[in-house]
Amino acid sequence: MVQLNKTPRVVIIGGGFGGLYAAKELGDKPAEVILLDRTNHHLFQPLLYQVASAGLSPGDIAQPIRHILKHSNHLEVVMAQVDEIDVAKKLVIARDRSVSYDYLIIAAGARHSYFGHEEWERFAPGLKNLEDALELRRRILEAFEVAEIAENADERRKALTFVVVGAGPTGVEMAGAIAELAHRSLADDFHKVNPRDAKIILVDAADRVLPSFDQKLSDSARRQLEQLQVEVRTGVMVKQVGPEGVRVGDELISARTIIWAAGNAASPLGKSLGVELDRVGRVKVNEDLTIPGHPEVFVIGDMALFTHQTGHPLPGVCPVAMQMGRHAARNIMAAAQGKPMAPFRYRDKGQMATIGRNRAIADLKLVEFGGFLAWLSWLFIHLIFLIGFRNRVFVFFQWMWAYFSYARGARLIYGVFKPQAERKKETATAGRKEE
Amino acid sequence: MVQLNKTPRVVIIGGGFGGLYAAKELGDKPAEVILLDRTNHHLFQPLLYQVASAGLSPGDIAQPIRHILKHSNHLEVVMAQVDEIDVAKKLVIARDRSVSYDYLIIAAGARHSYFGHEEWERFAPGLKNLEDALELRRRILEAFEVAEIAENADERRKALTFVVVGAGPTGVEMAGAIAELAHRSLADDFHKVNPRDAKIILVDAADRVLPSFDQKLSDSARRQLEQLQVEVRTGVMVKQVGPEGVRVGDELISARTIIWAAGNAASPLGKSLGVELDRVGRVKVNEDLTIPGHPEVFVIGDMALFTHQTGHPLPGVCPVAMQMGRHAARNIMAAAQGKPMAPFRYRDKGQMATIGRNRAIADLKLVEFGGFLAWLSWLFIHLIFLIGFRNRVFVFFQWMWAYFSYARGARLIYGVFKPQAERKKETATAGRKEE
Repeated sequence: MVQLNKTPRVVIIGGGFGGLYAAKELGDKPAEVILLDRTNHHLFQPLLYQVASAGLSPGDIAQPIRHILKHSNHLEVVMAQVDEIDVAKKLVIARDRSVSYDYLIIAAGARHSYFGHEEWERFAPGLKNLEDALELRRRILEAFEVAEIAENADERRKALTFVVVGAGPTGVEMAGAIAELAHRSLADDFHKVNPRDAKIILVDAADRVLPSFDQKLSDSARRQLEQLQVEVRTGVMVKQVGPEGVRVGDELISARTIIWAAGNAASPLGKSLGVELDRVGRVKVNEDLTIPGHPEVFVIGDMALFTHQTGHPLPGVCPVAMQMGRHAARNIMAAAQGKPMAPFRYRDKGQMATIGRNRAIADLKLVEFGGFLAWLSWLFIHLIFLIGFRNRVFVFFQWMWAYFSYARGARLIYGVFKPQAERKKETATAGRKEE
Repeated sequence: MVQLNKTPRVVIIGGGFGGLYAAKELGDKPAEVILLDRTNHHLFQPLLYQVASAGLSPGDIAQPIRHILKHSNHLEVVMAQVDEIDVAKKLVIARDRSVSYDYLIIAAGARHSYFGHEEWERFAPGLKNLEDALELRRRILEAFEVAEIAENADERRKALTFVVVGAGPTGVEMAGAIAELAHRSLADDFHKVNPRDAKIILVDAADRVLPSFDQKLSDSARRQLEQLQVEVRTGVMVKQVGPEGVRVGDELISARTIIWAAGNAASPLGKSLGVELDRVGRVKVNEDLTIPGHPEVFVIGDMALFTHQTGHPLPGVCPVAMQMGRHAARNIMAAAQGKPMAPFRYRDKGQMATIGRNRAIADLKLVEFGGFLAWLSWLFIHLIFLIGFRNRVFVFFQWMWAYFSYARGARLIYGVFKPQAERKKETATAGRKEE
């Protein structure tokens, strides 16, 4: 089953930042590469919240993986839902087919998680992929339609209340984006309700927003959110989520729209590796990104628990995934040539989070700043990394347009909600049979 | 229940071309107007096939109805699924609420129809709204993914065969667009299959394509389709549609992707009016667009059977709906002021159909032509009528981009198929209660 010829066969699971950068690194090397992904596209996740808030279209932030990688002709892209990995037989098992490997890179990412309260998803969906974003967009826009025809003040108030659970980057971006949508873009489109009355509440159990940043930047972010009229409630626990709203402490916040940005769990694929996982399902990796006992299996990105550098886990952000992807690919080429693998070292160039128009915070290591300059840097860096020249141009134009007009380009309501578990089952996919 | 004050209350059902143009006409008149639509957006249907073929995003061809009509403050837009009309009580019944009217304009359009073979829809979806378009896009793009991992030549050939049933404008546009997608845009993105091998077959029971055009233009369209390597089969009856493909006459065309562009049925709302309908459910209207016995009820657009002008029914195209919408609105204002209503007269400015890049036919009454010039005229006219300055600009840029690069901007696969009957039930909507 295993091929023992000189050209190693590398299988990559996942076409996110980790998998894509690994594939790009291997693209011009002597390796046979197969990249498997559940969908046909690479998603630029940092801008996903803009799809959820009706600013961008799905096509603006996603590109077909095979189109991105088309210049490499020993690299194959297959749309497939991977169910399991058999590390003993070196097999990736996808639906009714399986693929053998010499080296494996697992970059299947994370999903949102409700810490044992999966029944909350129906009332408070999260934001990980395009379907999630379109569902959130539908709910957010529909809330104003429902408010417009509400029969009493309580119903109207509930329809105009948006609760975002979790004040990490996604939660902060969503809260800011909904505030701008309500107070600016939609402000004059309704007759009976004033979208400016919308209440956006950001809750988190931690004592401050964006806790991965310095206290000073975190305070700045909170001030900027409050300027956008977002009500920030830190240090409060969510006890219950349901059709009536969110219960925090003893209080019930009556809300029609709830957005879950609180928890992540690594892809369940980690479980089939038979190695140590942490509480959220991340795989404890060696310093060279392989897993214990299997120097041919790499786990990278949001799925990896890497603590060798600082004693703390590296965060689940794009730069970590990109660097890990490149590093895993290089280690594979080293191993294939009988050379030793190098330990992974994350080069942290800083972090930034956007809050809204002209509002952001940036920690570029040498310098920290908030406000307009941080926002401009954020725009610039995200455009640079957005894959595909066409997407870059179009997103740039849409941002310019939105900046000057306050209008949103994709205010569409359609489609029907499906929880992530059901969706996974139904997504049409196919594997690849190995002889 | 009925309001007898001077300002008439006009209810419009449907925010397509008919309903929208009626609402625009009434926007600055002394009338209280309520427009009901199942969705929140007006859809520019003539470009829907470009969403289905991955050229444009949904947001490019759809605009929130309330945004288009925001400048009129005695005009209300309500998202609601209308189930029935009670002409005796002058009530529109939407889900659990109802709306009373003095005048009613019904512009609920048409859906695709399978002439009693509704079970074919699962295998051959049609193209009427955004959900349809995204479903077709998903199927078309997925077909190439399936071909790439096919296990034998038969399976691959089936995956690369696309049958379009119906050679009216939609069928011709889809066939041309799939041909260009396969032979140009996707041509170099796959390793195992050559998308240039894709076979696109356009079938119709009539003896020529685009039968609403002159024989000469129809012949030109056929030649242009054949230049794009579309196989045109006219004069053949579809006997069966299923998972294995399409049976035409005695032959089974093995095909994974089948697109239904053959039949329309008017909205079932016509049935609740208690007046004469034709075979496809259209309402036989009087010369002033009202229905027999109810001078306060107007039926327009694809739902109307209007034969007074030529003896033949007017076609279900946008210009007819737009002119009817404007006319119905004017007749209502006349009637409200005690003046007589005017008979409707369609001013036919011609018709055009696009086939592909540089390819179209145009019949502008004074002059008929095909090819590049027809295609340029088509582009120009569609841009002019596309609602919303922003959409116009973005569609223009995307067309320019696609023209020079052959790339498609929205090659995304996601979502799950739902037949139209199921969707209708689930779409979240709300009505408006009347006291």
